[in-house]
Amino acid sequence: MNEQAIQSIVETVVSKISPKDITLDLAQSVAQKVREKAEKMGVKAVVAISNRAACPVLVESMDDAYIASYDIAVQKAFTVVSLKMSTATLKPLAQPGGSLYGIQFTNGGKIVIFGGGEPLKNREGQIVGGIGVSGGTEAQDTALAAYGKEIFEKGQYL
Amino acid sequence: MNEQAIQSIVETVVSKISPKDITLDLAQSVAQKVREKAEKMGVKAVVAISNRAACPVLVESMDDAYIASYDIAVQKAFTVVSLKMSTATLKPLAQPGGSLYGIQFTNGGKIVIFGGGEPLKNREGQIVGGIGVSGGTEAQDTALAAYGKEIFEKGQYL
Amino acid sequence: MNEQAIQSIVETVVSKISPKDITLDLAQSVAQKVREKAEKMGVKAVVAISNRAACPVLVESMDDAYIASYDIAVQKAFTVVSLKMSTATLKPLAQPGGSLYGIQFTNGGKIVIFGGGEPLKNREGQIVGGIGVSGGTEAQDTALAAYGKEIFEKGQYL
Amino acid sequence: MNEQAIQSIVETVVSKISPKDITLDLAQSVAQKVREKAEKMGVKAVVAISNRAACPVLVESMDDAYIASYDIAVQKAFTVVSLKMSTATLKPLAQPGGSLYGIQFTNGGKIVIFGGGEPLKNREGQIVGGIGVSGGTEAQDTALAAYGKEIFEKGQYL
Repeated sequence: MNEQAIQSIVETVVSKISPKDITLDLAQSVAQKVREKAEKMGVKAVVAISNRAACPVLVESMDDAYIASYDIAVQKAFTVVSLKMSTATLKPLAQPGGSLYGIQFTNGGKIVIFGGGEPLKNREGQIVGGIGVSGGTEAQDTALAAYGKEIFEKGQYL
Repeated sequence: MNEQAIQSIVETVVSKISPKDITLDLAQSVAQKVREKAEKMGVKAVVAISNRAACPVLVESMDDAYIASYDIAVQKAFTVVSLKMSTATLKPLAQPGGSLYGIQFTNGGKIVIFGGGEPLKNREGQIVGGIGVSGGTEAQDTALAAYGKEIFEKGQYL
Repeated sequence: MNEQAIQSIVETVVSKISPKDITLDLAQSVAQKVREKAEKMGVKAVVAISNRAACPVLVESMDDAYIASYDIAVQKAFTVVSLKMSTATLKPLAQPGGSLYGIQFTNGGKIVIFGGGEPLKNREGQIVGGIGVSGGTEAQDTALAAYGKEIFEKGQYL
Repeated sequence: MNEQAIQSIVETVVSKISPKDITLDLAQSVAQKVREKAEKMGVKAVVAISNRAACPVLVESMDDAYIASYDIAVQKAFTVVSLKMSTATLKPLAQPGGSLYGIQFTNGGKIVIFGGGEPLKNREGQIVGGIGVSGGTEAQDTALAAYGKEIFEKGQYL
């Protein structure tokens, strides 16, 4: 193997470990892991992954998932990138009396304020995308999104 | 192999050949073929596949696809199931003076009236889902959706 | 300097001190001061300034501000002129049980009910515009909008 | 001046000449030039500049511009990035009978199909943002957007 080939491999690996944005390939790898976990938990989930521009890259609806979960998952993936926080973190802030109560009505109703959405950071700590999961209880969705985040941030989808 | 195992295999094969609805597994197989074709054509496409209830099962956005293509692909996949015809068939009907002119304004703007959407039929001729492709010219999107339909209806994704 | 030139200068100064409406020039001066303050506070803000008709005159998004902040800032600037009160004043009224609870659902979702929006008054006490800031915590956004209001009303942008 | 300082200057200049995205600083420089040109032409324009994610970075409304021009300018800046073409190029495709007739109704009504929007490319030919101008005749808006594009692409805003 010559130097150029090695260099090319190194660059590919580095970009996968610390991507600047979410590719479809990457999103598919993470979503598959999350679906496998959901299956074990008995959850029929919709998994949505957005890029750093908060646009959806991938949406997968497991068989027999809630019809409503599609919009919720997609919007969770939007919320976490556009506000740079998990939907679980946003939740208490958006309750009546909370500092951001009312944010659920701005942005054309695209802000979700319950658990199941997590921003995805690269090695440099930059938010490069987001994952939204919907289909189980809030606790299950939150756990699944957190699992997706962990898979992504530890590069365990490689 | 006992009788039960054989029966199970037969049912699986039959359900794949003539499915009553679109599963995620099935949608992924078809979408992958369509993306491979798009790649050969130099098109960066968004591929959306909906089930018989016109709800999205899968949406995949190839890297660097048009941002606008996400909505268009998803809505094409909605249009073809909800109106039981391809978007290319709908196109002339929806022109000014056409019999359905105005349908592009009903249904919350979710009806797409240019090529790139095809209903997916099973062996019995029932529409069980739809495919929407956006990202190339109208001719390219139309060809890619038709290719997805062919792959699906001939069971070539197996 | 002749009398006419002096008169022109006087009119310009008076119109700046007590403008009847927000000009782009004026909005830019105020927004710049607010952005400088935000920078010192470590906040990446979107600053929106509307005129007396509640229409946006200027929207500036600091680099790497929240994507969601654009809509929120613009809508804060709309809210304060269209309801003639700050969003912090509106906040308690719009909580469940409050006298205006429900106003967050009227007006097409354009009413924001948390801090960060302030009406801008001229010397005669007329509301001639509004400022909306989004990007920090509610306390930070509120402080920044109040700062913009102060800058404007004291003519400190001159 | 030491080597490090020179290096820093070089990097700044290069990033300005071939930016990967639109900063507020950059958007302000381009918008100012476009407004100066509009003033000479007697047009009261709204100038909107979006980044590579099709999100608005800056919107400036010249005094006494059309109220309707705000939405139009912002949506032109969205259209050109999300479809990677100028709105003048899109125009014939979106006429009744055209290949993309109907695209004006998809994407929540955010696609503008008349002149006045231009994508902004960096030296590598990547679309890194867009400009939308509204306020004059279609010919004037088209000319102003083209002027903004030229200013940007030749680095004449430096």
